[in-house]
Amino acid sequence: MTVNPIGGGQIGRSVPRLEAREKVTGRAEYTHLMRLPGMLHGKIFRSTVPHGRIKSIDVSAAKKIPGVFAVITAEDVVKVIPNPYYGPAFHDQPILALEKVRFVGEPVAIVLAADPHVAEAATQAIVADYEELEPVYDEVEAMTAKSYVHDELKPAGTFADLKHLKGQRNTNLALQAKLRRGDVEQAFAKAAHVFEHEFRTQKCLHVPFEPFCSIADAKDTHVTIFSGTQGPSFVRAEIARLLGWPENRVRIKVPYLGGGYGGKLYMKLEALATACSMIARRPVKIALTMEEQFYLITKHPATVRIKSGVDKDGRITARKCEVFWNGGAYADIGPRVTHKSGFTAGGPYDIDNVWIDSNAMYTNMTPAGALRGFGMPQLTFAYESHTDMMARALKIDPVEFRRNNVLRNGRPQATGTILKDAALEPILEHVADRLRWTEKFDRGSGTIKRGRGIAFALKACVSPTTSVAIVNVGADGSATLYISTVDMGQGSDTAMAQMVGEVLNLPAEEVRVIARDTDITPYDMGTLGSRSTFHMGHAVRLAAEDARGKIAALRREVGEPEGSNTPVSGLFIKKYGMKAGNIVGSGSYKPDYVAPDHDTGLSPEITPFWMVAGAGAEVEVDTETGRVHVAKLVNAVDCGRPVNPRIVETQISGAALMQLGFTLFEKINLDSGQITNASLADYKIPGIADVPPIMINEAIDAFQSNAPFGAKGVGESATMPLSPAIANALDDAVGVRLLELPITPEAVLRALRVKEGRPLDDD
Amino acid sequence: MTVNPIGGGQIGRSVPRLEAREKVTGRAEYTHLMRLPGMLHGKIFRSTVPHGRIKSIDVSAAKKIPGVFAVITAEDVVKVIPNPYYGPAFHDQPILALEKVRFVGEPVAIVLAADPHVAEAATQAIVADYEELEPVYDEVEAMTAKSYVHDELKPAGTFADLKHLKGQRNTNLALQAKLRRGDVEQAFAKAAHVFEHEFRTQKCLHVPFEPFCSIADAKDTHVTIFSGTQGPSFVRAEIARLLGWPENRVRIKVPYLGGGYGGKLYMKLEALATACSMIARRPVKIALTMEEQFYLITKHPATVRIKSGVDKDGRITARKCEVFWNGGAYADIGPRVTHKSGFTAGGPYDIDNVWIDSNAMYTNMTPAGALRGFGMPQLTFAYESHTDMMARALKIDPVEFRRNNVLRNGRPQATGTILKDAALEPILEHVADRLRWTEKFDRGSGTIKRGRGIAFALKACVSPTTSVAIVNVGADGSATLYISTVDMGQGSDTAMAQMVGEVLNLPAEEVRVIARDTDITPYDMGTLGSRSTFHMGHAVRLAAEDARGKIAALRREVGEPEGSNTPVSGLFIKKYGMKAGNIVGSGSYKPDYVAPDHDTGLSPEITPFWMVAGAGAEVEVDTETGRVHVAKLVNAVDCGRPVNPRIVETQISGAALMQLGFTLFEKINLDSGQITNASLADYKIPGIADVPPIMINEAIDAFQSNAPFGAKGVGESATMPLSPAIANALDDAVGVRLLELPITPEAVLRALRVKEGRPLDDD
Repeated sequence: MTVNPIGGGQIGRSVPRLEAREKVTGRAEYTHLMRLPGMLHGKIFRSTVPHGRIKSIDVSAAKKIPGVFAVITAEDVVKVIPNPYYGPAFHDQPILALEKVRFVGEPVAIVLAADPHVAEAATQAIVADYEELEPVYDEVEAMTAKSYVHDELKPAGTFADLKHLKGQRNTNLALQAKLRRGDVEQAFAKAAHVFEHEFRTQKCLHVPFEPFCSIADAKDTHVTIFSGTQGPSFVRAEIARLLGWPENRVRIKVPYLGGGYGGKLYMKLEALATACSMIARRPVKIALTMEEQFYLITKHPATVRIKSGVDKDGRITARKCEVFWNGGAYADIGPRVTHKSGFTAGGPYDIDNVWIDSNAMYTNMTPAGALRGFGMPQLTFAYESHTDMMARALKIDPVEFRRNNVLRNGRPQATGTILKDAALEPILEHVADRLRWTEKFDRGSGTIKRGRGIAFALKACVSPTTSVAIVNVGADGSATLYISTVDMGQGSDTAMAQMVGEVLNLPAEEVRVIARDTDITPYDMGTLGSRSTFHMGHAVRLAAEDARGKIAALRREVGEPEGSNTPVSGLFIKKYGMKAGNIVGSGSYKPDYVAPDHDTGLSPEITPFWMVAGAGAEVEVDTETGRVHVAKLVNAVDCGRPVNPRIVETQISGAALMQLGFTLFEKINLDSGQITNASLADYKIPGIADVPPIMINEAIDAFQSNAPFGAKGVGESATMPLSPAIANALDDAVGVRLLELPITPEAVLRALRVKEGRPLDDD
Repeated sequence: MTVNPIGGGQIGRSVPRLEAREKVTGRAEYTHLMRLPGMLHGKIFRSTVPHGRIKSIDVSAAKKIPGVFAVITAEDVVKVIPNPYYGPAFHDQPILALEKVRFVGEPVAIVLAADPHVAEAATQAIVADYEELEPVYDEVEAMTAKSYVHDELKPAGTFADLKHLKGQRNTNLALQAKLRRGDVEQAFAKAAHVFEHEFRTQKCLHVPFEPFCSIADAKDTHVTIFSGTQGPSFVRAEIARLLGWPENRVRIKVPYLGGGYGGKLYMKLEALATACSMIARRPVKIALTMEEQFYLITKHPATVRIKSGVDKDGRITARKCEVFWNGGAYADIGPRVTHKSGFTAGGPYDIDNVWIDSNAMYTNMTPAGALRGFGMPQLTFAYESHTDMMARALKIDPVEFRRNNVLRNGRPQATGTILKDAALEPILEHVADRLRWTEKFDRGSGTIKRGRGIAFALKACVSPTTSVAIVNVGADGSATLYISTVDMGQGSDTAMAQMVGEVLNLPAEEVRVIARDTDITPYDMGTLGSRSTFHMGHAVRLAAEDARGKIAALRREVGEPEGSNTPVSGLFIKKYGMKAGNIVGSGSYKPDYVAPDHDTGLSPEITPFWMVAGAGAEVEVDTETGRVHVAKLVNAVDCGRPVNPRIVETQISGAALMQLGFTLFEKINLDSGQITNASLADYKIPGIADVPPIMINEAIDAFQSNAPFGAKGVGESATMPLSPAIANALDDAVGVRLLELPITPEAVLRALRVKEGRPLDDD
């Protein structure tokens, strides 16, 4: 190995995924497939009421069923974990329901048995009695409701901006994030036009193909947890906190994940599995069914009220947004979604006066958390629909209207942070170009109408967060990278190996990646918010550079001249007298960040980088059925310099197709708090037939100047602009505007009938 | 945590072993207990002749047995590993016998089956035909025999002093290590007295209670091997070499070991398991029975010819030693045993003229390797018996004779290296004191005669060797240590945790030790030769100091005043804005070393430290049965400053009791190359009834000035002087001198009868 200062040629290579062969040959390890000796299976008994006080839980019959090892309720849990409440933002969620239940499906008890079928059957023999309380479901109504999901707010203490909420009572508002820039009311008064709309998005599911699964093996002095989690370092710290143990007694090992999408962040089944294992003194596995995923974590439904003032030249001068996030019964990371997406609710526009209230609401539904985009797709659906509606009303071409208002590098974003390395305008032009926006367009005929829509968006990265990496170079010159980044299909192991290879001048395929085991791999805040390429990328770069520096020092120490070609293995032999030793490099990274002002939300440094994405859609609408067929879909992102172009392309297409489901058909239906379509038979996700016949997925030529090798994240980007691009295309095709997702045939047909003056109900 | 320059109070504490609870509750993991999904069991078909050319191996019948997955011979092995020869000193040992067999019990073929009983049964159906060759068994005869175990010598290239042997033919001499100091012949000529004796020691077994076991799981691009090995870094490198892969594709994971004693060093079953797994494309486990251990590795039998010249004042002026080591059919680490013990064959005496030839011989027996003492117990039996014999002949008190000749600190040892921090004289005086040497002694009556004996010894440490350690401090201040040192019962995990605690001012119990996994833990030359406390101790100290330095730098970086009491977790929060991040410290250690001159064996720096031990025995000899009962046993060692006094004490007692078996009864019996007592029913090891009723195990007050915290190794020390102390006590009791081990009742009785002029055969 020679150290090549101009780089090892590994960045920008479409290296096949390191784990591909293991996965396609079925040898890759997933938590769902694992069994430990003596392991018990846990099956959960769940609440049947949305809100209630627990009067009694009778487990006596279940305990008598042959093969049942134990039946555990909160009463047992508190004997091993006295304060069993957890959560990243609020310590609001009990390991098993304690005193109250807050949503239908909440875990109330768990049966342990060697045979999972016995455990499942025994849950049927448990009887719980509740004093029912008034439930609250709607995120807007929750603000004024007189029934409260929680008696008292319990901030976790992790986030400074939540501390003031401690002990607040009689509220369903978990967090209100504000942004105040300029004077919107004055600007509205002066505006030539004022537009105001309200949008709503639905409750959706992550649907990782590997459902949630955790195995805990608690010993007297330490616990090992195998879990399909995106955040092993977080889970480790949180389990340690619950147990009152130092973190080095808690080991979180993460096999491969069968998808995550934000759903597998923070604590999910790990605390319950740990409590069970401590009580049973056996390894305990809890593996959810597909159906049970509906009762664990979902996407936030949101209501977005958006109001803009536009001057006579078509420039947006003021924007007011009021956003209500339906966080369900437990906050999970909802308050962060509320805050982080909140400050970009004004969109990718250069607006002097911005007023935003972003409200995290508790309701009596399955909790909501992060889902690929961290709230941005909900907001973007609102603001980019709103943008088109204004353009149409003003009879300005929607691309031209955006071009007139786009935020440019060097200008302050709503928070005051100066935009840098964010290719908003190029993305807009690129999508318009790919759609041949200015060319003549076939608008269809008969009952099939055709239309086009465009949207684009800007997302900040969650900050400040830390990543640490270790690079170990062995005596034969081979390198091993240690990271806690979770490769859940996004290709992080491969991308990080490329970075090590780039610095150490090794082929990426020869870098061994050891990942996702907190006993071994150093701290990482979590694999979320498209942060890994940038944050862990920096840590990996620093660790590899540290190793490279130590190799250079070894070269000098053993008396090799500068620029000698002696391979690394030769240096070790010179130093140690035999093939022995290691060089250990480490790197830590945390980007600069200035916390936003509590009252104004302003900050000169709110994010280390901006993610930018644009989408363009051509749709065919069947006016007889209301069906919207996406004939062509263009997805374009700015991810800086792609580390692995092929993986970037699959990230774009994957994100877009996922959002296509949320746009056209996915929705969790609720009836009095009961989910009525909790199965993949009833809850449809996109299949191969839903893929647009023409789909273009592109990263534009870009470079993030403060990033490792110019690269930034891309996992979420293409989710952001897709829904409004389709809504805008629908309007363009048939002149109806849907303010709510999903854009189902029924909704379209209903809107068409309303437009024609004959509502659907008339049929 | 505050950094306390005077230390954390962890050294010298008898911390209970960290793994004690896991072990006593049966939850500790051993390779023998492990099963992987789809795993096959391998059972070995072995040679029935001691030396022969393979004419044919018929596996057809075995293959047809239902349940047999595969039957593998060398022909299959070479398809996946073209050059299947391995070994630390010579690449002489094939994975399965190729062309020739060289000892009875050598693996010739292996049957794989899901059911180990099926595999075992199928080995009976294999038929091999050999052209038998003349065998050689005796280590002295091997020197002049005309039959050669190997056609050609194949040095591994690892050791510079073996390179000149490459390609040598027509020899059974694998290595001759010489030491030439002064002029012995001239000194003998001038001496007042010259004594010459020949001693022999027997072939013995390590008998770890967990027999050897390895599991290999070979994938296309990497292999994971679970193995009870003392040298994971060595096995990794050697497997990588055999496969032609970089080392980072080979993972050696070592669960707990049920004992090692040097037998589990270097390659044992790992290469065979790997070849099988590559061929079968399944995980393969090879677990030996107790009986099969007799065909894997043993202790070296040795013949020691020793001649001394003594002047009129009782000073030893010259010593000549000729040592023949019976290495068996494959060299394993025998040449190192030969060399490293060779240069101390002169004993713990200050002798101006020394001549040593130490010869590593190939023979047609089970290979011999390291066994707790690395050759020293064999040598010490010889030279400390010889010492007593001279003292008795000269009518000088044996303690006084030793006192007159002892090597003192500041004086050159035979190699020329100046003795330092070696408490030879204090150990001698301590043992004499504990035996009340100068007081009146009850010499028994009737048929029970009582006697006393003393011996002491000096051992160099194997050099130059390297150890690397990593210490990771988490955001809550808890620390994790990564080392490849193998805790096989000697307590290394606990001792190393104490060293980390000492530097970082944490209780040792709170330091988590991650050990023995080459994907994770950095390089270590091996857990052997009592080197870990010193070598890995230094690496651990350096790694912890590196971490401590980085903590101090972090303290400065976040603006904490020097000496502030803010805990480490507080520094992380200040730096990262939340409980995040790690500090990674690493340390590498290799002691200074000057390779001995090829012709004279002299070196000014042959070892980083000296191990010293003394033993004193009081025995009762039954003159009617020949039984020797050890009534009192004193074991004293200089291990510098004990890190964990309680563990040191158990190391002393364990080593002494092990050597007691080798002294009084353990012996592998051979008949025409066939082992006739290959079972624990016939091969007796010490039981509770063999423990001397009075047994004193002590580390004397000492400090090794160049050692980490003043501590050096102790695992082997007490094995060295025990056998001659008992042989000397026997002579003292009944006036007979045994020149060969073991000292069985039959041998004693025979010697008594010879002394009385009526040989045993007369009965």
